[in-house]
Amino acid sequence: MNKKRRWRILSFVACLLITGPVHADESIVGLTIDHSIIPVEIANNAILLREKALLDNLSVDIVESITTEVGPRRIGTEGDARAIAWAQAKFRELGFDRVWTEELPVEHGWIRGEASAEIVAPYRQNLVLTALGYSVGTDGDLVGEVIEFATFDDLLAVPEGDSLKGKIAFVSYSMADYVPPPGASRMAGYGQGTRARSRGHVEAAKRGAEAIVIRSVGIDNNRNGHTGSGYGYEDGVRKIPYAAVSAPDAILMQNMLKRGVPMTMRLNMTSEITGPIVGANVIGEITGREGSDEFLVLGAHLDSWDEGTGALDDGAGVGSMMAAAAMIGQMEGRPRRSIRVLLFGAEEIGLLGVREYARANQGIIGKHLLGAEVDGGGGRIHTLTSGVGATALPVVREMHKLIAPLGVAWSDANDAVGASDMSVLGRAGMPALDFGQNSNDYFAYHHTPNDTFDKIIPADMRYLTAAYVTIFYVAAELDIDFRE
Amino acid sequence: MNKKRRWRILSFVACLLITGPVHADESIVGLTIDHSIIPVEIANNAILLREKALLDNLSVDIVESITTEVGPRRIGTEGDARAIAWAQAKFRELGFDRVWTEELPVEHGWIRGEASAEIVAPYRQNLVLTALGYSVGTDGDLVGEVIEFATFDDLLAVPEGDSLKGKIAFVSYSMADYVPPPGASRMAGYGQGTRARSRGHVEAAKRGAEAIVIRSVGIDNNRNGHTGSGYGYEDGVRKIPYAAVSAPDAILMQNMLKRGVPMTMRLNMTSEITGPIVGANVIGEITGREGSDEFLVLGAHLDSWDEGTGALDDGAGVGSMMAAAAMIGQMEGRPRRSIRVLLFGAEEIGLLGVREYARANQGIIGKHLLGAEVDGGGGRIHTLTSGVGATALPVVREMHKLIAPLGVAWSDANDAVGASDMSVLGRAGMPALDFGQNSNDYFAYHHTPNDTFDKIIPADMRYLTAAYVTIFYVAAELDIDFRE
Repeated sequence: MNKKRRWRILSFVACLLITGPVHADESIVGLTIDHSIIPVEIANNAILLREKALLDNLSVDIVESITTEVGPRRIGTEGDARAIAWAQAKFRELGFDRVWTEELPVEHGWIRGEASAEIVAPYRQNLVLTALGYSVGTDGDLVGEVIEFATFDDLLAVPEGDSLKGKIAFVSYSMADYVPPPGASRMAGYGQGTRARSRGHVEAAKRGAEAIVIRSVGIDNNRNGHTGSGYGYEDGVRKIPYAAVSAPDAILMQNMLKRGVPMTMRLNMTSEITGPIVGANVIGEITGREGSDEFLVLGAHLDSWDEGTGALDDGAGVGSMMAAAAMIGQMEGRPRRSIRVLLFGAEEIGLLGVREYARANQGIIGKHLLGAEVDGGGGRIHTLTSGVGATALPVVREMHKLIAPLGVAWSDANDAVGASDMSVLGRAGMPALDFGQNSNDYFAYHHTPNDTFDKIIPADMRYLTAAYVTIFYVAAELDIDFRE
Repeated sequence: MNKKRRWRILSFVACLLITGPVHADESIVGLTIDHSIIPVEIANNAILLREKALLDNLSVDIVESITTEVGPRRIGTEGDARAIAWAQAKFRELGFDRVWTEELPVEHGWIRGEASAEIVAPYRQNLVLTALGYSVGTDGDLVGEVIEFATFDDLLAVPEGDSLKGKIAFVSYSMADYVPPPGASRMAGYGQGTRARSRGHVEAAKRGAEAIVIRSVGIDNNRNGHTGSGYGYEDGVRKIPYAAVSAPDAILMQNMLKRGVPMTMRLNMTSEITGPIVGANVIGEITGREGSDEFLVLGAHLDSWDEGTGALDDGAGVGSMMAAAAMIGQMEGRPRRSIRVLLFGAEEIGLLGVREYARANQGIIGKHLLGAEVDGGGGRIHTLTSGVGATALPVVREMHKLIAPLGVAWSDANDAVGASDMSVLGRAGMPALDFGQNSNDYFAYHHTPNDTFDKIIPADMRYLTAAYVTIFYVAAELDIDFRE
């Protein structure tokens, strides 16, 4: 925020404190709001709400609460059961009018177990690694020569059959060192990395390998693996163990391999795929003055990977979405439309929570007026992109002006389908908004033991929440169909 | 390095390439060298050597070698035995004239074992922690209420006796949040933190506690403990287990405790103190043209903590000191004086290596003409401080001018005794130099699994090495007594 803008906001807040609420107008934000689209009272309330959100620590407090009182919450675990109870209690505490769960049966659970490994030759050294989601175990020590592939494509280039018989494949691709092509973001590097993470065990097995380890998909230099993936074996292909070594361990392995001597690894994983489990999607509603029949949806996922406390992924989403809806609910008078916060129970292992939700609620997808999700950490919003009908588009453009002072740009693409879970509903026809987010150190921490509350930057969380609360307050007040 | 200086150096190097060696003079470095103190040929050679060192990756390559081929090397472990063999082989490979070991018997070894912990109540969560050096184990699960002390002094304020009976003491002091008093450096915060690390288990036991955990002494926010300490029990005081939780875990514990509900921890450590072990100090000598009788010493410690690969602590010292002496040895003609690189075998558990060295070599402490040690990571030198006689002082001031272009300031204190191990020899009368070092992220990584080769910044290592090579080359050529 530049000094001029900060001064304007401070002056405005000071003015409120001295004189009580005043009619804000466009001069405050430096952008002209078209009041034939957003009536002046709604615009003023939105601005007041935005400024309140910038000073309100609720979103941060919610992340502190879930990370402290629950912690890791992978579906099917004891932590997940506590998270489901926590979410319902928190919705009620925050004054949501209706709170309920929807059952989420999943075919298999997974026990992480222990994962240990060492280089046996040429130089004995311990490695730090983590089992990737839903990997099988090694059934005791698995010892094999390590064959390095610089990229997943290099692994694919090996003929299927028994080329890698007795070997442990090692994909050393580094997201940290990836230079995106012009126009692409850091996410492109993540996408490259997740190819091996989600398919490597299948493709390595097709080539005879006994196991596969990849360099963790992340941008940090910390000595912890980044987990991920889930539910990824293919029928008819041998199930081999898969794991991710930390970046420093991948570099160590590469440095050893540079010496041109065969490298042998011992791998021991006690991971185990289990029978059916049941989780839940948890839903809280701020009921609007026109009832529950139609509603806006704010999404996040309640589950997390199991080594950190899920602060960034996706405690930040849970905190910002719960807080945004609660703040709208705490205003004088109900909003016109209802707002539901959907907390999905199994995003991490393949969007299973939202898929079950979509299946169970297929008859009412049309009642989902507009949706958005936070699943990229606690950073500020930098760009708003709509995914709405032609008539609604100028309305959303007008709404955008209300969050422009938060440093949010507008994208003309109008191709949003919603982030993460929400994309399943977006693709099923729900109008959506994408709030492009500064992911800060997200890819340094997510899916690791390091995803903990101390990584949350409170001021950024408040900015994040302020963007959502402003847009969704206006969307809830306006009587328009975002599909049109 | 500013542009002007870079241009000067580049011009000078270009000049060398075109015309062969020329007589460098003070105009090149912008400082007037008094050639009645440092003869022009020695000064010129020093400048050439300095510039060569800035382009020579040898120090980095040595760190890569020890971290890749050896890894962790705590005294008494298999890694330590490999490190001793590695060091001798590396000295020979680098052309050192004499290489030997001196036996280092230590009364007790230590098995780290496993350390696990969880908060049992009010909210079940796993903790990440590491046993502190030479802790005893817990003999199964140890369960107790956690009592927080913000500082070590707060723990000391509790009456001795059974005030903490049945409890687990928790010192939550944070080095990261410590604001040094005016004039003090970050090291002051480290010093505060190490008080509880080195004495907490004794003082907590005197007050009846069953165990003590401290927040790791470091500045990072990573989910790994920082180990340290060693050999610290006191006769007549009950031996209780002691461990360090990671910073995020300490914050989690504090957040739970803020809720005002008693907190119970389960701690399980299988650490074990063992019988006698034997390590070694390893010494390599570049023999001067006046023989081995008197010598300069460059120190570092060969041992490391056992969770990382000891890249910063003290691979960087091993690499820079070996490289500096080797580069002097590789010059045309022998230096006047011999230079010995002393690699001490047990710094981490209380300077035991140098103490044994001082004991075994007490008759020849007077033959140690000048000493210095690197034990602060691979960062650049920012300040040179001497600890020499009144006659030698102007000589060292003159020597300093040769490294001023590396960004090194001069301190008038003349109170140096040598860093780390070397201080034992300095206090025994050896003239010493302190090379004040930019410790970069040293306190984020040292004593953790994260102390790995990728944390070395090659350019900084070359600058570091260049400072030592320049000063010690000149010191080896001059015929002066640094005591006088």
